[in-house]
Amino acid sequence: MTARITLADLPIRDDLRGRTPYGAPQIDVPVRLNTNENPYPPSAALAADLAEAVRGAGGTLNRYPDRDATALRAELAAHLRHGLTAERVWAANGSNEVLQQILQAFGGPGRSAMGFEPSYSMHPIITTGAATRWVAGAREDDFGIDPEKAVAAIEEHRPDIVFLTSPNNPTGTALPPEVVRRLVAAAPGMVVVDEAYFEFARAGTPSALELLPGNPRLIVTRTMSKAFAMAGTRLGYLAADPAVIEALLLVRLPYHLSTLTQAAARVALAHRAELLGYVDRLRAERDACVAWLRGRGLAVADSDANFVLFGRFPDRHAVWQGMLDRGVLVREVGPPEWLRVSVGTPEEMAAFRDALSGVLAGPDVTPASLATAGRDQEEETP
Amino acid sequence: MTARITLADLPIRDDLRGRTPYGAPQIDVPVRLNTNENPYPPSAALAADLAEAVRGAGGTLNRYPDRDATALRAELAAHLRHGLTAERVWAANGSNEVLQQILQAFGGPGRSAMGFEPSYSMHPIITTGAATRWVAGAREDDFGIDPEKAVAAIEEHRPDIVFLTSPNNPTGTALPPEVVRRLVAAAPGMVVVDEAYFEFARAGTPSALELLPGNPRLIVTRTMSKAFAMAGTRLGYLAADPAVIEALLLVRLPYHLSTLTQAAARVALAHRAELLGYVDRLRAERDACVAWLRGRGLAVADSDANFVLFGRFPDRHAVWQGMLDRGVLVREVGPPEWLRVSVGTPEEMAAFRDALSGVLAGPDVTPASLATAGRDQEEETP
Repeated sequence: MTARITLADLPIRDDLRGRTPYGAPQIDVPVRLNTNENPYPPSAALAADLAEAVRGAGGTLNRYPDRDATALRAELAAHLRHGLTAERVWAANGSNEVLQQILQAFGGPGRSAMGFEPSYSMHPIITTGAATRWVAGAREDDFGIDPEKAVAAIEEHRPDIVFLTSPNNPTGTALPPEVVRRLVAAAPGMVVVDEAYFEFARAGTPSALELLPGNPRLIVTRTMSKAFAMAGTRLGYLAADPAVIEALLLVRLPYHLSTLTQAAARVALAHRAELLGYVDRLRAERDACVAWLRGRGLAVADSDANFVLFGRFPDRHAVWQGMLDRGVLVREVGPPEWLRVSVGTPEEMAAFRDALSGVLAGPDVTPASLATAGRDQEEETP
Repeated sequence: MTARITLADLPIRDDLRGRTPYGAPQIDVPVRLNTNENPYPPSAALAADLAEAVRGAGGTLNRYPDRDATALRAELAAHLRHGLTAERVWAANGSNEVLQQILQAFGGPGRSAMGFEPSYSMHPIITTGAATRWVAGAREDDFGIDPEKAVAAIEEHRPDIVFLTSPNNPTGTALPPEVVRRLVAAAPGMVVVDEAYFEFARAGTPSALELLPGNPRLIVTRTMSKAFAMAGTRLGYLAADPAVIEALLLVRLPYHLSTLTQAAARVALAHRAELLGYVDRLRAERDACVAWLRGRGLAVADSDANFVLFGRFPDRHAVWQGMLDRGVLVREVGPPEWLRVSVGTPEEMAAFRDALSGVLAGPDVTPASLATAGRDQEEETP
């Protein structure tokens, strides 16, 4: 027998050496509040419609899908409104693939992309995966972006792509529209406003979709994984100038979006009243969670998303582990000393409160409780 | 009103400027023999099982899919046999995404990949899309690979990745196993044997899977798009050393494979007797097509795939257009003066013969018939 080959024996890219795979632990635990999923599953009626759509498409699966997903894109455009049409909308397997296609078209060797951290950690991962240099800008102590400083940073680094996440992950922070407008005007290249959590923003928060007219270098990305409760379907989309869509057609893998994904996303759109009907409930649960955490004397970031960042714990890993021991999985992510909890059902949030109360009252939070599980420093995918 | 923005106004990557999107024309025509699809649709029984699987999964679609697709990979390994297990198998959205992940892990700036042309044109497209230099090696006049010349080319260029397509697209040529063995031994880096059409090879043709033991730099890719008649599902897969899979985990987008895709591929595997049951019929139809074309005095490449490359036509575009005018869509692809026809049903092949006979007997093949439709110089995706 020869010795087992390891990754170090293979000629992988130098910048991948020593890296570990991205991802939140997929742990089987009663209460999973770690990946910002929507806790409300699609109804039996939706599942039945989906099954019927798939049965109908089944007899054509020997054929390649519509390469340009034209029907789906038209329906996504109608959903987004703002005068959008299919030629201004694009879709891919999750907004991660949407972002990767943007990097492939507008990034690459010799180019750079910039974000304001802490933010969605897939932005730098997808950027470097596309052989593009990452420039880390900074957010303020309240997790907002100071427009003067941000403009100065953009003018200093001249990034080819600027990422703005609003509401931001993992902090929940929505950007005021005048900040987005300032940064779009200042950026020399493309600007991506990642609105994965937009539907959860407090009433009256405007979308960057409003800024699309006259800004052909602006791209607004969305996902069906959060408010639409379709994380398992993997459908991300974006709106932009038609010329941006033409650029993405040059880099997308042909037939990237399966017949089943296109059909499922269309069924989800047909049921959007049901799916988005849970958003108000989740917002109320979020606001109650923020109030409860503040009532415990904890620091809590204002949230316009379906999660809450709270702290500060000098030994956050011990808190994370103590919660897990009590059957509640939250996320050890973002700035040091903070944890993130996704908003679940009322029952799940009660379990969260009980678990956190137990941890804070108990002996878990000691240095000895360290090193019992792998660290997890990254955000989940939208 | 401002003038409409064009691609040229956007800061796209320099090497994309002036390019047009990849892809065979998706034309609505009675007989489509252009993208090497399997002409036999899945049965109603399969579609019903698929619908049932989707209905069952529907209630969990608010959750992210199994990020590592462990159940599917175990079943793919069992299907491939050769002692494979889940840790030696990987899957993604079509073998295009499998190939892109390989490039992201083992290619990149400063690295190169090599193939022997004419071959599957997505290999260089995916290579350059991953900022990797493409080195074009050459096949012989019979579309085979001369091992001495190929070894010399590999030693000259020292590519980080070597692509071998067997059976080759668009020529249908299977590589003798001793040639694959020689080139795997000669390559300094990774070797990808693209076996998208393997199931159609003539009986007794060995798979490169046999070479996996002791060759940790060898990767064998397959697809469900061809023999499995699942082009609409978008499921590509590969077998390799477990360390290769670990490398791919570093670059794959998290949750790249949807719950629906994983479920559909498992249903397809459960029905593989039905799906692969058409392979013998397609092989017989292919061999009859080769014989008929040769009987017409045409040049025909030996084929181990579900398509046939035939010629030579000084004005192949006129022949392609003449066939299309008669309701039969073939592919204008590969070396100049050749056309490629996918093997369809007996009825479709009769229509193909009638159309080609009509074109060859008629006045179509004149220079005047040029320039009536867009050229199409590329292969379809596996």
